[in-house]
Amino acid sequence: MPLPYRWLTSLMVRYNGMSILIDAGEGTQIAMKKKGWSPKPIDVILFTHYHADHISGLPGLLLSMGNSERTEPLLLVGPKGLQRVVESLRVIAPELPFEIVYRELTEPEETIAFPGNDRFRIEAFRVHHNVVCYGYSIILDRIGRFDVDKALKLDIPKQCWNLLQKGENVTLDTADGGSRVLTPDMVLGAPRRGLKVTYTTDTRPCDAIVKNAAGADLFICEGMYGEDDKQDKALEHKHMTFAEAASLAAEARVGKLWLTHYSPSLVRPDDFMPAVRAVFPEAYPGKDGKSVDLSFENDD
Amino acid sequence: MPLPYRWLTSLMVRYNGMSILIDAGEGTQIAMKKKGWSPKPIDVILFTHYHADHISGLPGLLLSMGNSERTEPLLLVGPKGLQRVVESLRVIAPELPFEIVYRELTEPEETIAFPGNDRFRIEAFRVHHNVVCYGYSIILDRIGRFDVDKALKLDIPKQCWNLLQKGENVTLDTADGGSRVLTPDMVLGAPRRGLKVTYTTDTRPCDAIVKNAAGADLFICEGMYGEDDKQDKALEHKHMTFAEAASLAAEARVGKLWLTHYSPSLVRPDDFMPAVRAVFPEAYPGKDGKSVDLSFENDD
Repeated sequence: MPLPYRWLTSLMVRYNGMSILIDAGEGTQIAMKKKGWSPKPIDVILFTHYHADHISGLPGLLLSMGNSERTEPLLLVGPKGLQRVVESLRVIAPELPFEIVYRELTEPEETIAFPGNDRFRIEAFRVHHNVVCYGYSIILDRIGRFDVDKALKLDIPKQCWNLLQKGENVTLDTADGGSRVLTPDMVLGAPRRGLKVTYTTDTRPCDAIVKNAAGADLFICEGMYGEDDKQDKALEHKHMTFAEAASLAAEARVGKLWLTHYSPSLVRPDDFMPAVRAVFPEAYPGKDGKSVDLSFENDD
Repeated sequence: MPLPYRWLTSLMVRYNGMSILIDAGEGTQIAMKKKGWSPKPIDVILFTHYHADHISGLPGLLLSMGNSERTEPLLLVGPKGLQRVVESLRVIAPELPFEIVYRELTEPEETIAFPGNDRFRIEAFRVHHNVVCYGYSIILDRIGRFDVDKALKLDIPKQCWNLLQKGENVTLDTADGGSRVLTPDMVLGAPRRGLKVTYTTDTRPCDAIVKNAAGADLFICEGMYGEDDKQDKALEHKHMTFAEAASLAAEARVGKLWLTHYSPSLVRPDDFMPAVRAVFPEAYPGKDGKSVDLSFENDD
């Protein structure tokens, strides 16, 4: 429920000029503007599911994107029914200056790839709520370090280094009229640690979360209730407690855990953090407008 | 467009335990909660038209009303198409514990009556926008003052006074076996000045507004642009300037004018008030959460 002091749960991820939004409840576009971000450059909106608090802000958001004179197609991703739900909501946003592309998820796990950038991808994974609901991992791979010694030893011309470093193959004409194919693995070390953000709300704890959040730098997870005595309520409504989210974070060995999607009855999430940190020390309460810059770790 | 520092335009009128909402854009339910008001007791929602900024908050509002365990039917009033638009938006709010009653407006002027309270009514009047759009007057009549001298002179028993004062007829048995009908006009003076609030947004100035706002205690009118040089824009988009709203207020001889429905480009409406007050002195800029208590004027 949107509250005067708390926006509905949503995440914006920005990478390399691309903006990816997860969920768009009532007021998400206002929260975004408050943060100083424009809805215009959103390339993808991922929906966890179609309960109103996760999609009620879509028509207004689409109109604001339209008003900003955006013309690039917009990719919408979500469980089956996406197009039906969105087209029904668009009764009040029928005309837009950009195309909407729908991708409906039907498998337990699916990968959303971005042609032209094979080191970036989104993994969708089905979680366990009272309707079909998905979590998402946004993943940026990082190739190995360029090995200058190896490149020199293999007599690879310097003008090819840049392409190989970008992961591309290069074909050279040889003196005997043949050709020589250079591949990135000739000059790159083992892939290095990339970046991964995993987001999941509206679910009971389940194996798919542990598997898909494994090793995430940032794991954003619902914590509907802080109080341990709300465990029954969490079970009944297919949500989770802070303690359950912390256990998942520990099991998935993530870097940091941010809790979100609080019950309206949960006014001061901070009160419950000491108990949560006993389970998983790097746990933090999500807050309106909270953000972080993630960078590759230093070269090893 | 909803902004971090300004909610979308909406009005809540509360009278005698009844709550009437005009329009419900994205965030209206949050603005309402910020004001300390619950959506639960809303009896009627009047829609001016179905542009998203006037109805995008409806699904969330309906769900919040449902969560509050309201069971009384809700009356929705608006131009033709109401049921189609609302049912389409309800794709994300399909189950509610209360009934929705639709009243679609088709005439240039219509009265919404409330059985059991014939001194209270809402008048809908068609205005002039780029889609069919209505303004509304919320009207509370006031009967004449009870004339004790007249009642004594006509020998009306005291136990009938209260009913007559409430506007009801009373039939008395007479000594000769017949009956005597007492009517309120026997003991009441001329009707006194009641209360009237007139609300209109998304329209060019038009005769229907002057007619329907005539003598309103409070006239809430759109002022999309403060700058006089935006007159062309106002014409093009079928909106009005502050000066035009002030002229309407003067012509309709209203008590006070509140301006609302500002363009996102209009950041400081106060800057334009001196010019507006030269046209209509009792003009004030609308602001988030602004409210007033209106009372009958003192007995004369």
